[in-house]
Amino acid sequence: MNPGSVHADENVARLLITCADQPGIISAVSTFLYHHGANITDFDQHTSDLRDGRFFLRLEFQLPGLQQNLDSLRTTFSERVAAQYRMEWSLTPSSEKKRMALMVSRHDHVLMELLWRTMRGDLPAVIPMVISNHDDLRGEVERFGIPYHHIPVQGDDKAAAEKKALELLDGQADLVVLARYMQILSPDFVAAYPQRIINIHHSFLPAFVGANPYQRAWERGVKLIGATSHYVTEDLDQGPIIEQNVARVSHRNSAEDLKRLGQDVEREVLLRAVRCHLEDRVIVHGNKTIVFVK
Amino acid sequence: MNPGSVHADENVARLLITCADQPGIISAVSTFLYHHGANITDFDQHTSDLRDGRFFLRLEFQLPGLQQNLDSLRTTFSERVAAQYRMEWSLTPSSEKKRMALMVSRHDHVLMELLWRTMRGDLPAVIPMVISNHDDLRGEVERFGIPYHHIPVQGDDKAAAEKKALELLDGQADLVVLARYMQILSPDFVAAYPQRIINIHHSFLPAFVGANPYQRAWERGVKLIGATSHYVTEDLDQGPIIEQNVARVSHRNSAEDLKRLGQDVEREVLLRAVRCHLEDRVIVHGNKTIVFVK
Amino acid sequence: MNPGSVHADENVARLLITCADQPGIISAVSTFLYHHGANITDFDQHTSDLRDGRFFLRLEFQLPGLQQNLDSLRTTFSERVAAQYRMEWSLTPSSEKKRMALMVSRHDHVLMELLWRTMRGDLPAVIPMVISNHDDLRGEVERFGIPYHHIPVQGDDKAAAEKKALELLDGQADLVVLARYMQILSPDFVAAYPQRIINIHHSFLPAFVGANPYQRAWERGVKLIGATSHYVTEDLDQGPIIEQNVARVSHRNSAEDLKRLGQDVEREVLLRAVRCHLEDRVIVHGNKTIVFVK
Amino acid sequence: MNPGSVHADENVARLLITCADQPGIISAVSTFLYHHGANITDFDQHTSDLRDGRFFLRLEFQLPGLQQNLDSLRTTFSERVAAQYRMEWSLTPSSEKKRMALMVSRHDHVLMELLWRTMRGDLPAVIPMVISNHDDLRGEVERFGIPYHHIPVQGDDKAAAEKKALELLDGQADLVVLARYMQILSPDFVAAYPQRIINIHHSFLPAFVGANPYQRAWERGVKLIGATSHYVTEDLDQGPIIEQNVARVSHRNSAEDLKRLGQDVEREVLLRAVRCHLEDRVIVHGNKTIVFVK
Repeated sequence: MNPGSVHADENVARLLITCADQPGIISAVSTFLYHHGANITDFDQHTSDLRDGRFFLRLEFQLPGLQQNLDSLRTTFSERVAAQYRMEWSLTPSSEKKRMALMVSRHDHVLMELLWRTMRGDLPAVIPMVISNHDDLRGEVERFGIPYHHIPVQGDDKAAAEKKALELLDGQADLVVLARYMQILSPDFVAAYPQRIINIHHSFLPAFVGANPYQRAWERGVKLIGATSHYVTEDLDQGPIIEQNVARVSHRNSAEDLKRLGQDVEREVLLRAVRCHLEDRVIVHGNKTIVFVK
Repeated sequence: MNPGSVHADENVARLLITCADQPGIISAVSTFLYHHGANITDFDQHTSDLRDGRFFLRLEFQLPGLQQNLDSLRTTFSERVAAQYRMEWSLTPSSEKKRMALMVSRHDHVLMELLWRTMRGDLPAVIPMVISNHDDLRGEVERFGIPYHHIPVQGDDKAAAEKKALELLDGQADLVVLARYMQILSPDFVAAYPQRIINIHHSFLPAFVGANPYQRAWERGVKLIGATSHYVTEDLDQGPIIEQNVARVSHRNSAEDLKRLGQDVEREVLLRAVRCHLEDRVIVHGNKTIVFVK
Repeated sequence: MNPGSVHADENVARLLITCADQPGIISAVSTFLYHHGANITDFDQHTSDLRDGRFFLRLEFQLPGLQQNLDSLRTTFSERVAAQYRMEWSLTPSSEKKRMALMVSRHDHVLMELLWRTMRGDLPAVIPMVISNHDDLRGEVERFGIPYHHIPVQGDDKAAAEKKALELLDGQADLVVLARYMQILSPDFVAAYPQRIINIHHSFLPAFVGANPYQRAWERGVKLIGATSHYVTEDLDQGPIIEQNVARVSHRNSAEDLKRLGQDVEREVLLRAVRCHLEDRVIVHGNKTIVFVK
Repeated sequence: MNPGSVHADENVARLLITCADQPGIISAVSTFLYHHGANITDFDQHTSDLRDGRFFLRLEFQLPGLQQNLDSLRTTFSERVAAQYRMEWSLTPSSEKKRMALMVSRHDHVLMELLWRTMRGDLPAVIPMVISNHDDLRGEVERFGIPYHHIPVQGDDKAAAEKKALELLDGQADLVVLARYMQILSPDFVAAYPQRIINIHHSFLPAFVGANPYQRAWERGVKLIGATSHYVTEDLDQGPIIEQNVARVSHRNSAEDLKRLGQDVEREVLLRAVRCHLEDRVIVHGNKTIVFVK
């Protein structure tokens, strides 16, 4: 009966499921959990014929002795329920903090927010490292006791730089967050962390895809500017959108103002997207996300 | 696999449940539905220990031949599931439009919105009548073919006026909406429609309880004005809140402006609250609401 | 000292000015008005070097006997102030209602809002006529006592249809509002009403330029949908933006839901854009607008 | 022609004026500035008869050699313009950073935001000191190189504690910001910094005046929670409101969640209020503020 707050009860877990829809799935899942002594405390499910009858579910349950029984629970669930419905699924204890590596260039605003939130226990994560193509933010990062790796990216050594980053990340990160990292990742890099690289784009996608969105927004005379957080795919700025928001601007605001105002939106949007991912609230289907908002 | 749109499939129904929480409820409900041939397409459940372990559920399911089997489904569910868990519950076909009586004084803005939305099929309701303590809006109402009853309320004939209104409503209304009805209803009237009278208050409750909220908001110099829709109880402006919203104002706005801007908020907030009620998205528990937002 | 409310004082006027910036303009304008007995009650000015030193001003003033002195005031202002600074300017009594012709196809939601607002005195306009390429909405329009002209547009008679519309509008309209008019206007038509045709586009421009924006927004999986009101220019969906807004959507919303939710945003955004134009709050400069918001 | 960005041009200044309204004020002010070689780049004025004909003005101007001529400009303006109209006024160079002392108890969220923004040059202020009734946040503050004064407040030594704080502040602060300082200031303390102490209250005032607003908001079942920044006066939570905002909450949110979500609103609202004050955008009149928003 835990409401799923940030301060996770060690006996609480989250189950994410997607599969082709058919009658009986909820009965099968909930009966399985009941027979294993679990009490479901939050259950959010949706099926849409517009998505060719796809079933999406996130639930939280409380189970005394969760930690000791986790392996057997996963095995049994896999055999008795998941296999029958060909589910893609994950079962994650709420107390398990994901390892979130950060990549950044020179802008500090979203980096600082993620560092500060994580360090004060407001985000359920640990930060194993920060990787940057510049050395500017080393001091800010290291004072939190977090390793800072400077990997310059210049001209034709981009492949070497990515190789070095992948080696550092190997086995150390469940998630990579691009906190205004101004380099385009290669398909190989992306493939190493499918649906586990989150980017913040400084426009309301799909408007202003590409470079200099604030300048272009100012030139177009929009009345709202925005930011978009999405999973990174091979196609630049085209990955599944997790979260977006906007802020109102006026003719009194210069292009420089838009950039400053936009940074606050970026900060807020990336934080919300990362929080949803860390709390296992996101399922990716095709190029879209299902986000089970609290 | 119907996504639950306004255009209701005749084989879709909604089930609302609340009871004390315990393990096994979801299993019992979903297995019951599965065995009766239903496919659950949307399932939203929450339990909170902060509300002393109360279980709240709204689900939608699709069942071929729903209409013919509705009575037996209700009876069987009552006997086999609801009784065991001491549930308060309702099972409602999505195609069943609620009868929504409107009460209004002189302001037309929310009345017109509800009339217009209902008539164009945008709200799943029928409007059996409009009751007013003034005759001003008769023309607007009657041109939609809806009966308009003028029941003046003056001095000590308030009890008689209420009696007349209750007689008109008797057996004709599932829901009474106070669309800026400027009379306080007696406890007897309220008791006749428990959790079925919806009011719109022109402030962000609990700020500015009582009369003249816009004038008082202007005098206090607030930067946002609001509106609140709530179920009517015996205590004025104290009933369970269904929906609220705000709008930004500035020093350039006079008290008269606040009233005009606020009317747009009232219109939007009451519409959303009424829509939630009509789509069976609201459970009242104590003096609070659980609203299963789409 | 009138606060500029909708209920216009007959002695209140608005002055809109734009010109190249240089010192002394405000002194010249305000001293001119002072010497003519006017009291300025609201003054909103902005200059931006980013717009190559362009001066933009909207002010309201109160002048006893305004109506009798309007012609001489305009003449004198033109000679003594405007000429010197090469101003583009307009001087408009607040009590003067603009004539707003509406063009519509089959969607009624923004049309009804504009009709209803205007008829109850909430928009400072008169509606001389509604022109439509369909006959569907005749009844709704005519019951307000407004002429409804059905001008079908089929195949190669588009030029003839436009010609007929222009003849009807000739001398009758200060402003043309496209209230979901689903035909593209020719450059000749647009040239007849420069910066005086307002359109509502059902997306957050520049995202989803062109047809079927809701379907495309649903396919892209955006988390906010929007609407944009802009002046019509020769370039489709590229004219100066007056107003925009967004609404939050989720995976529970079908493409059909997006359309329904978006219609409410369209209604609100067009209303605000039209109100700004009617209250002389908009200056167009290049492909952008300066909107002096209340 | 500087647009008034944060990165202040040393030749730009701001003039704030309020007085009883009468014709000719704008002419007098703008002509004075013109004759002294200034170019007005932003001018925002409003008069309201509802506020008994009070005149409010904020303008920005550019004047070559501002710094050298500031004293004589002030003297001359005082004699030739301000005296005649009995103006309350201030003339402030945009490049002049206000000294902002912070007082805090144990919550770090708004303190960190103000520190971080100021240190990166995003707020035009310097922070001479932080005063706290607890020692918890010393490390966070001192690493920015800012003096941290721990002044415990216990039982009957409150007067002594305030005396000590006033001595520390004396001559060092233009502004005192209560960044979640959980002590009520005495009338004497308030009188020492009239209209220069800014507080953040963790509710949407006037709702939930007093203690524990989040718990009370949760119990009332509101659908939006808010925060309010206001100038401190003798009357607790009753001072002139500078800024407010809200965030949406649902039945899934516990009282603890409301507190966490509310902290983000507090942070944003206090930041905006402080920024307005620092940029000389606020005039207090009676118990209300006129805020000239960018």
